[in-house]
Amino acid sequence: MPPTPARVVAVGTHDIRFPTSRELDGSDAMNPDPDYSAAYVVLRTDAPDGTEGHGFAFTIGRGNDVQVAAIDALRGHVVGRSLDELCADPGSLSRDLVGDSQLRWLGPEKGVMHMAIGAVVNAAWDLAARRAGRPLWQLLAEADPEWLVDQVDFRYLTDALTPGEALELLRRGREGAGERAAALRARGFPAYTTSPGWLGYSDEKLTRLAVEAVAGGFRHIKLKVGADPAEDLRRLRAARAAVGPHIRISVDANQRWDVDEAIVRTKALGEFEPYWIEEPTSPDDILGHAAVRRAVAPVKVATGEHVHNRVVFKQLLQAGSIDIAQIDAARVGGVNENLAVLLLAAKFGVPVCPHAGGVGLCELVQHLSMFDFVALSGTTDDRVIEYVDHLHDHFTEPVVIRDGHYTAPTAPGFSAAMRPESVAEFTYPGGAFWTADLARRNAGNRKERAV
Amino acid sequence: MPPTPARVVAVGTHDIRFPTSRELDGSDAMNPDPDYSAAYVVLRTDAPDGTEGHGFAFTIGRGNDVQVAAIDALRGHVVGRSLDELCADPGSLSRDLVGDSQLRWLGPEKGVMHMAIGAVVNAAWDLAARRAGRPLWQLLAEADPEWLVDQVDFRYLTDALTPGEALELLRRGREGAGERAAALRARGFPAYTTSPGWLGYSDEKLTRLAVEAVAGGFRHIKLKVGADPAEDLRRLRAARAAVGPHIRISVDANQRWDVDEAIVRTKALGEFEPYWIEEPTSPDDILGHAAVRRAVAPVKVATGEHVHNRVVFKQLLQAGSIDIAQIDAARVGGVNENLAVLLLAAKFGVPVCPHAGGVGLCELVQHLSMFDFVALSGTTDDRVIEYVDHLHDHFTEPVVIRDGHYTAPTAPGFSAAMRPESVAEFTYPGGAFWTADLARRNAGNRKERAV
Repeated sequence: MPPTPARVVAVGTHDIRFPTSRELDGSDAMNPDPDYSAAYVVLRTDAPDGTEGHGFAFTIGRGNDVQVAAIDALRGHVVGRSLDELCADPGSLSRDLVGDSQLRWLGPEKGVMHMAIGAVVNAAWDLAARRAGRPLWQLLAEADPEWLVDQVDFRYLTDALTPGEALELLRRGREGAGERAAALRARGFPAYTTSPGWLGYSDEKLTRLAVEAVAGGFRHIKLKVGADPAEDLRRLRAARAAVGPHIRISVDANQRWDVDEAIVRTKALGEFEPYWIEEPTSPDDILGHAAVRRAVAPVKVATGEHVHNRVVFKQLLQAGSIDIAQIDAARVGGVNENLAVLLLAAKFGVPVCPHAGGVGLCELVQHLSMFDFVALSGTTDDRVIEYVDHLHDHFTEPVVIRDGHYTAPTAPGFSAAMRPESVAEFTYPGGAFWTADLARRNAGNRKERAV
Repeated sequence: MPPTPARVVAVGTHDIRFPTSRELDGSDAMNPDPDYSAAYVVLRTDAPDGTEGHGFAFTIGRGNDVQVAAIDALRGHVVGRSLDELCADPGSLSRDLVGDSQLRWLGPEKGVMHMAIGAVVNAAWDLAARRAGRPLWQLLAEADPEWLVDQVDFRYLTDALTPGEALELLRRGREGAGERAAALRARGFPAYTTSPGWLGYSDEKLTRLAVEAVAGGFRHIKLKVGADPAEDLRRLRAARAAVGPHIRISVDANQRWDVDEAIVRTKALGEFEPYWIEEPTSPDDILGHAAVRRAVAPVKVATGEHVHNRVVFKQLLQAGSIDIAQIDAARVGGVNENLAVLLLAAKFGVPVCPHAGGVGLCELVQHLSMFDFVALSGTTDDRVIEYVDHLHDHFTEPVVIRDGHYTAPTAPGFSAAMRPESVAEFTYPGGAFWTADLARRNAGNRKERAV
């Protein structure tokens, strides 16, 4: 009797929350007090070597339980799948999840349910790359172009990009891929850093961190804007004075403005030459972004971290709304949908500069940019991956930044696995950190009542 | 001591599912087997008269538990609110829910979390209308225009509609409102019916139901299309033959097509003069809808039941993507956001023809159209509310259709309360129906194993 083929036997889910709001790390004009969180999913298998697949949705605190519930709702589509089939065609899982007609109603292809699909699909890719013994970027960069095209759902895209055009882009992308992979391994992929620019930081801290960033090799930093106009000016002036004229400084309004306000507020910062204005208004406002872009040039317009699927990215490109496409690894439906977005951006000639930070977003998205460089766009010109130096030590294979560049991962997988100790400590509400926190707060309340 | 003011003391949530997939009621090209469901919410109060507020999100089966979890996540914003304050300004609740910065990350303003907000906000309006002793349409139609403008969140809208313009529209809408309210009470609001046209129905059933609909006073019916092209033609031909040339027949593709395909497929139906093509492609595709509309005239383009917020409606209107705006009572963030959409449609002169059917959507949305007629657009020309004759008997105040018109509700509230017996029977999985169903299926499995 041949041995039973290995299967996915369980989908473990974990509500992980980090108390980042206490340091104002991650504070911006829209999100004053995020507790960076992950709805973390582990695909457990009965493979003899114990291979697992890891993925997560990123949230900023409340509602992370809802995100976990959404992942739980997908369990029936995953448990029982053959590992060989899943790893040979992660797109089959993606299609089944996106195609569940009853669950589709909850989006369609947006919000909590779509982020849940993204987490599970990314976990399948982590599993596939681990089994293949390759980091995901390399698996993708070495994959057959026909196979990659089959991984993409072209529904709603064909007026902008056909499978034939995608195949052509991927075939052209393979020319010189070996040299670019070597260059990537030698130098890494350029990063920019948002670490200096959180809205809750003092000018002193901002300036100090900006100078440190440049000393550390970064040629591009980003500041949060969008609260008080005078404060925006003051902070940008301080940053420009600290880093000089040759470092790119981008600004990020985190959706704070209406269209007309975005134009006025961006133009008011022109004196300090911001490189891009990010999320000037609603991420749903394709026409609004186009209007802002027409008005604020030469400042570039960037958006994407909250763009919920490939259909909106398609239109942002069709309407000329953006100079820079900011994919997020955990907002859309996972690697398969991000392949669609990378192909769309390549077709329209728009650079992809991923959103990262949060919990583990740097770990994931580096793979997508590295694939894009090696085997699709073929360049790192004007391409940078966001970097924020938070929470990396909770991952088993944290990103490595050297001289302002992401180092190419060598470990098999999607760099998505969290350390078991971190999962145990920051599981909400039962983990050690939150249990102790509750006890501290209860003690505080008792003391207050006693006074 | 003055009496303690009444407050919301609990938010009850219920996962209610009806086994509609067994009759192919509600089957369309995208949703072959929906189990119409409601994530039902009851705001309980300590008011001496026991007043409650009722609302729900509509789903089609799997994932209704995720929708309930999302409503549960809002509880902290609701419990403890003063009834007087909540009913005097439901917009304050709407603003607090939409403005929760951590929960906002899960959308923003889209998908599961936004539908949860819609359910809770609608429950608050139900409560407000019950306390005011008026059906919601009347409460809105008699409200002070300034107060209505304050109920609207204009964020991201001001490039298309300012508060000042909205006020002007509402003031103009009040002229002659008394006469229109009387006309509404006398004649009702025109309906169209989708009951004949589900994709799973035979031609015989389709024809019979279409003839019955016309005999019952409907002047407008709708068929589902989007599966096999020859079948679309055959069904539309049969329906046109059955009802003659003077009855409007619209067709609904439920998002099945890419843009180019939508154009070809719609034009292919032209011979039978469909009135509108509904959801020809992705609800997110503003530019795609505009391309379809340019190509298929004189067939009109209608969409909206899956349009997730006011920002997308704004753009559909700005881009000339639609001839008809199909609001849904339970997709966006509740009455407040639908007021924004009604005002946008009025500004752009586009008729609003609400999506309904499902569970209780007819009950809710009639109030919005009746307000629109009495105190905003001022006309029922080319305005119709969808009607489907399913599941109304589960509501305490079901819609009343007479001669193809929705009768104006007279009972206080938003017609959103379900019968307690229905809640008990169809609660999933513990209600009487589902418990018995599980027992039946287990017995069937045992029998199969025994064979």
